[in-house]
Amino acid sequence: MHFVHDTLPQRVCFGSAQASAFLKTEIEALGASRVMVIASQRDTRLVDALVQDLPVALRHDEVVMHVPVEVAGRARSAADRAGADAVVSIGGGSATGLAKAVAMTSGLPVIAVPTTYAGSEATPVWGLTEGSAKTTGTDPRVLPKVIIYDPELTLSLPLDLSVASGLNALAHSVDAMWAPKADPVSSALAAEGIRALGSGLARLATSPSDLSGREETLYASYLSAVAFASAGSALHHKICHVLGGKYNLPHAQTHATVLPYVLALNGPAAPAAEARIAAAFGTSSALEGLQRLRASVGAPRALSDYGFTPGDVPAAAAAILPAVPPSNPRPVTQDDLEALLRAACSGTDPAALG
Amino acid sequence: MHFVHDTLPQRVCFGSAQASAFLKTEIEALGASRVMVIASQRDTRLVDALVQDLPVALRHDEVVMHVPVEVAGRARSAADRAGADAVVSIGGGSATGLAKAVAMTSGLPVIAVPTTYAGSEATPVWGLTEGSAKTTGTDPRVLPKVIIYDPELTLSLPLDLSVASGLNALAHSVDAMWAPKADPVSSALAAEGIRALGSGLARLATSPSDLSGREETLYASYLSAVAFASAGSALHHKICHVLGGKYNLPHAQTHATVLPYVLALNGPAAPAAEARIAAAFGTSSALEGLQRLRASVGAPRALSDYGFTPGDVPAAAAAILPAVPPSNPRPVTQDDLEALLRAACSGTDPAALG
Repeated sequence: MHFVHDTLPQRVCFGSAQASAFLKTEIEALGASRVMVIASQRDTRLVDALVQDLPVALRHDEVVMHVPVEVAGRARSAADRAGADAVVSIGGGSATGLAKAVAMTSGLPVIAVPTTYAGSEATPVWGLTEGSAKTTGTDPRVLPKVIIYDPELTLSLPLDLSVASGLNALAHSVDAMWAPKADPVSSALAAEGIRALGSGLARLATSPSDLSGREETLYASYLSAVAFASAGSALHHKICHVLGGKYNLPHAQTHATVLPYVLALNGPAAPAAEARIAAAFGTSSALEGLQRLRASVGAPRALSDYGFTPGDVPAAAAAILPAVPPSNPRPVTQDDLEALLRAACSGTDPAALG
Repeated sequence: MHFVHDTLPQRVCFGSAQASAFLKTEIEALGASRVMVIASQRDTRLVDALVQDLPVALRHDEVVMHVPVEVAGRARSAADRAGADAVVSIGGGSATGLAKAVAMTSGLPVIAVPTTYAGSEATPVWGLTEGSAKTTGTDPRVLPKVIIYDPELTLSLPLDLSVASGLNALAHSVDAMWAPKADPVSSALAAEGIRALGSGLARLATSPSDLSGREETLYASYLSAVAFASAGSALHHKICHVLGGKYNLPHAQTHATVLPYVLALNGPAAPAAEARIAAAFGTSSALEGLQRLRASVGAPRALSDYGFTPGDVPAAAAAILPAVPPSNPRPVTQDDLEALLRAACSGTDPAALG
């Protein structure tokens, strides 16, 4: 046992229908009097209700996926001009990402109010896109000081997106098990994330308007993001990063589709992780647990459904190959990646990869 | 699900035979050039080897249990006079406690190098004793910035003290399950602490000089302390606080002895905690898991072995009663406490309490 684990400071406030009250308390605790609220226009009515008791100096609704640099620049200028002394982001990963972009240059404290299971709110990772190139980095200043989790806010997320977003969260905890900086602490958090996602997502899919499944899914998504932020990005995320950037595939759905193939490839070479994931699912193998969950929630099945084609496979594999972490539990070749991508493209049984 | 969870910032460096190297790196990272080293005289030779590469300005070896205020005062003055810019504590809870006392008034960063399973290094709780009265409090400034865990340093702890110290750590995670501020995050950490203590302590007791059991015990003690710091002090710790203060019973042994009786009392009233503890032990009931572990490690058995007598029971129960947390899973009366203390005094089967 040899590791260095950095625990990052963060306050998590969790409660259904509590977002508005939590926001008021936490903004007061920060001593902020000029709040910049970042949220997509789509969420205007939701946001109106949440921020009515706050000293809002500015509402900013230009929220764009992957945070283009010019979008970040306009948000930073707006924060400056308004003399903002805190940022509240309400929404999915794009809203959180824009708040982080503002915090990165201004040092302003961020309170994140997530409405999906994206998990960005629990990491110090920022991302900015210039043209088609996405740059990411880590900076303690962008880690939100406070997260407010209100499971009611996720009720409006449609079932298919809820499932994809939850499986994207699951990819954080599964990939954390063999990530470059995985340690016993991050693995313990990841195992709890997998357990609670297995239980919460299944309930969410059975009754999407039932709060308890969404509570458990949101809680598990948080833990999965903490584990992922600590353990670092592993094979699954390297693959999906290329697929998302190069082929413009939808983020959560891509993760949801690719995960079982990575698990089939890595699991046999990582027996401790495999056993731990299986135990978290309560099944005899990790892949069985994941596939049983995916079947029960009607998970995305094939990359071809999102426009990826068999013809894309060789170039995609070649782009992924240099990014494979040297610490991956098994060596990965161009052939391995092509087989994985072909299978994920058509949605064939991942067990055949093993 | 409704909670507020504060995650505290801390760096954990874990590795056998790595303490010296970790110390050098971490002191450099702090930019410190005048280090105050706090360690008991008993550990002089061990400490000589560990700090030889550090810019030591001062060695301070007046380490006394429960940190008497005059001892704290002398350490604070010594730090001042030496112009210390960092404190390194090496030892058990008393050494860590003295470093915290220095940090409390000076704001100096602390690097803690624990040699027992006491867990104080992972909490922002300080304690000072004036005469026979112990005051405790919480202050973010006293939380060590860095913990260096080197399992080799625990090899010199005799088996009986190792077992008592490990069971004291187990009391942190078990009591955290029903503590006033228990939440899903602290409970998940506590469950992992219980699991790893169950496994690690059993191996430690079988072969005390085998490192792997001590590694797992030390890792689990850390998680248990984090869970406890977050969840707060519950019934078990209220009982042991009175027994330690009023009857001068030895700390770790008292915790080790009392724990099964508290579990027998609270377990049936806290079914979720009971199930989670049982699952962590891999047994069908929580008490069965704890008692099986206690038997396998030759745990302390009866408070009468440490000088507590049946005649002390009524006054002890009366002193504990007002401290019982209102959030305890079941009401606790003077009669309940007397029955518990009588059983713990003589070491009778805790199952008879239930």
